[in-house]
Amino acid sequence: MARLFHVPLSPFCRKVRLSLAEKRIECELAEERYWEPSPDFLRRNPAAKVPVLKIDGKTMSESAAICEYLEEAYPDPSLMPRGRDERYEVRRLVSWFDDKFHQEVTSKLLYERVNKKIMARGFPDSRNVKDGAKAIKFHLDYMSWLLDHRRWLAGDTITLADFAAAAHLSSLDYISDVDWNRSQSVKDWYATIKSRPAFRSILADQVPGFPPPAHYADLDF
Amino acid sequence: MARLFHVPLSPFCRKVRLSLAEKRIECELAEERYWEPSPDFLRRNPAAKVPVLKIDGKTMSESAAICEYLEEAYPDPSLMPRGRDERYEVRRLVSWFDDKFHQEVTSKLLYERVNKKIMARGFPDSRNVKDGAKAIKFHLDYMSWLLDHRRWLAGDTITLADFAAAAHLSSLDYISDVDWNRSQSVKDWYATIKSRPAFRSILADQVPGFPPPAHYADLDF
Repeated sequence: MARLFHVPLSPFCRKVRLSLAEKRIECELAEERYWEPSPDFLRRNPAAKVPVLKIDGKTMSESAAICEYLEEAYPDPSLMPRGRDERYEVRRLVSWFDDKFHQEVTSKLLYERVNKKIMARGFPDSRNVKDGAKAIKFHLDYMSWLLDHRRWLAGDTITLADFAAAAHLSSLDYISDVDWNRSQSVKDWYATIKSRPAFRSILADQVPGFPPPAHYADLDF
Repeated sequence: MARLFHVPLSPFCRKVRLSLAEKRIECELAEERYWEPSPDFLRRNPAAKVPVLKIDGKTMSESAAICEYLEEAYPDPSLMPRGRDERYEVRRLVSWFDDKFHQEVTSKLLYERVNKKIMARGFPDSRNVKDGAKAIKFHLDYMSWLLDHRRWLAGDTITLADFAAAAHLSSLDYISDVDWNRSQSVKDWYATIKSRPAFRSILADQVPGFPPPAHYADLDF
């Protein structure tokens, strides 16, 4: 069986978990405190990051490369469209969330509020938290604009782009940092994606010291 | 003709320039001072980043998505292997350089020494420069280890992974921040890639206020 080394609130791990679950690939989860890397873990991934996926006799790292691999090795159901223009748009949006959104929002809210405490690296920097809280509004508005023109973020079908976005938003929702009242389109999109079977394991996550709010796992939030 | 909005020393732009040139796609370069974004530029890319490529009637951003698009739309010559394990390895290494190497080395050396001056954002932070100078040694050793086992970084053939790595190293070489004496394998690899016709435009780059060292464009450095 596949085995994923992860931390529960990492959006990069969640994106891989969602891809695996959507493709019905059975996978055992193993929590990895990557900020205290063991020699074993460094052997699995010299980059000392999660996710690390053991699958098909191989050990893989880098969430983007893992998701493209899963798409090529387990194409059904597909999380990438066929046309090259549509595939470009999916990849652009995955990078948008994993790079820009991560830098401007996730790292400033989740990492300040949760990771710093778990890793015993001091207190949240209030300037960062303020910047993150401001930036998420721009991103929700951008998503809202996309969803007013498209059924899913990258087009007519659900793709990796939706999972990348939902991975970040679900981690932030765990600490109540998403204002779902800002955009009805975004809320509807999240309600639909949240009700997929692939989302169940994400909604069951529990981080010691950080109980999730009641609405986190509520499909009718 | 295609048109690339770029800045000369950006490794992400260089990776796209190398892909375009290797595939013999004619492309006009337009320098874009993305840190002073104009409404025109923001319309081209709401992420306010370079590279932005206008090609085939479309405007594209995010270097990883652009390179995958070029690979699908212009497959000859190919910069991706056929097998899915080999493709995974290429993508893993592209992420390694564009994410980990960028964060640990490029952002700490190039951005401190060059970007801060060009953007009028103060002086280099000596702590960052010191950290970057230390981290590049680990990365050169990792590349050396890979190249002792393989002809090119990801395997037997030249791929996007080599161009991603060469894009970062060439930008750092422009400011003399690469110790080519650390590894003969890395030096030989760079000498080979540097002599490709695709590299010519990179070697001709000139940034006002930062003249390149003599060895930068020298194929026999």
